[in-house]
Amino acid sequence: MKIDVLSLFPEMFDGVLHSSIMKKAQENEAVSFRVTDFREHSGNKHHKVDDYPYGGGAGMVLKAEPLFAAVESLALEESKKPRVILMCPQGERFTQQKAEELAAEEHLVFLCGHYEGYDERIREHLVTDELSLGDFVLTGGEIASMAIIDSVVRLLPNVLGNSDSPVHDSFSTGLLEHPQYTRPADFRGMKVPDILLSGNHGEIEKWRQEQSLKRTFERRKDLLENAPLTEHQQKLLKSLKSKEKS
Amino acid sequence: MKIDVLSLFPEMFDGVLHSSIMKKAQENEAVSFRVTDFREHSGNKHHKVDDYPYGGGAGMVLKAEPLFAAVESLALEESKKPRVILMCPQGERFTQQKAEELAAEEHLVFLCGHYEGYDERIREHLVTDELSLGDFVLTGGEIASMAIIDSVVRLLPNVLGNSDSPVHDSFSTGLLEHPQYTRPADFRGMKVPDILLSGNHGEIEKWRQEQSLKRTFERRKDLLENAPLTEHQQKLLKSLKSKEKS
Repeated sequence: MKIDVLSLFPEMFDGVLHSSIMKKAQENEAVSFRVTDFREHSGNKHHKVDDYPYGGGAGMVLKAEPLFAAVESLALEESKKPRVILMCPQGERFTQQKAEELAAEEHLVFLCGHYEGYDERIREHLVTDELSLGDFVLTGGEIASMAIIDSVVRLLPNVLGNSDSPVHDSFSTGLLEHPQYTRPADFRGMKVPDILLSGNHGEIEKWRQEQSLKRTFERRKDLLENAPLTEHQQKLLKSLKSKEKS
Repeated sequence: MKIDVLSLFPEMFDGVLHSSIMKKAQENEAVSFRVTDFREHSGNKHHKVDDYPYGGGAGMVLKAEPLFAAVESLALEESKKPRVILMCPQGERFTQQKAEELAAEEHLVFLCGHYEGYDERIREHLVTDELSLGDFVLTGGEIASMAIIDSVVRLLPNVLGNSDSPVHDSFSTGLLEHPQYTRPADFRGMKVPDILLSGNHGEIEKWRQEQSLKRTFERRKDLLENAPLTEHQQKLLKSLKSKEKS
């Protein structure tokens, strides 16, 4: 996969794209990154990429031309058009399903504006996907793009080792994860539940299913609507619901 | 405000914390950042910070001790305990309201694990807030922490200039933003709506209110439940609803 990022602050990406899993993914040739300062494509001698909004108002608006020119220069020789992704609060909420969809693409281009609006013609005629991380405001699209890139790249073949395989992810069972503990069994008087030290694997598995269901019930009831439950979990869910009512 | 980050990959933060608004916020002394590799607090000579899960299973679990020791060393002389924030998919969904709440604190500590589970005693006895950006999986808590830090720091006094004041943010009117345009008026045949070139400020304001409402109706009906609407917008909403039914 090729990933391009267009940003006025390319140095923001140095740390994230060259550490840990992202570094490994490039070494394994699962992905190549290119970060471009789209000011290079301003097309004017003052390298201006923003201007006042038509109709008046506060703030500056990113001009159409630099972003159109930059995207065109990045995909010059491709027959298939890249997915061009704009991060903005008006976009579709990003989910794991979208991460899986994007992981099947060959070329992603991320447009990162910075505490400004975008000329609407960018949204209408250049961008293929408007995505949002959630209902909060960031100073720019850079960190939001990093989040999407990270969640997509880790799904590519040859990126994660077996032990951290995406199969064991949160959401893969449809429920939140059960609690985990590791040594020491007693840390400053805080103890690991006896069941986990019992060696009885059937009972441990049952306890984990219970905990997973209980946590989901307490924190994210919405997930229960679509989660496939074991027979044991269905029974437990009934009992949790009746306790809540009383 | 003091912000501490505990991570096994401190270099990931170099770009983000030293560019653009985050850089300016430090120069203006609105915030100070400290990124600590919590491996320094492992308390054992092999600098081990993770171990196998009790009860068996795939993946490794972050040990309690290094994170407890690291947090304690960071807040040694403080009378008020810091907010200790864990980013994880099981957490409460992060919103602008939470950003405003955190912006009123003096000291935030972010715990960033990396493609691992956390020993449950960390959640129960060390962490004050478990937060999530949404229903997708990241390789670690680092990028999610950057998102929260960015959204909080931009709300601090003396960080944003007047022209990009938080008052003009998305969500501040309760609706999505109207389209913005800047020069040229005709870009490759794609034209700016005539109304914005008319100079009639009353009509422009009306158009913007309409567009803002229309976009929210199309993309985020949920926001309409709480948004304060002008009389003009209420009329328009009725008409949008009746069109949708027919």
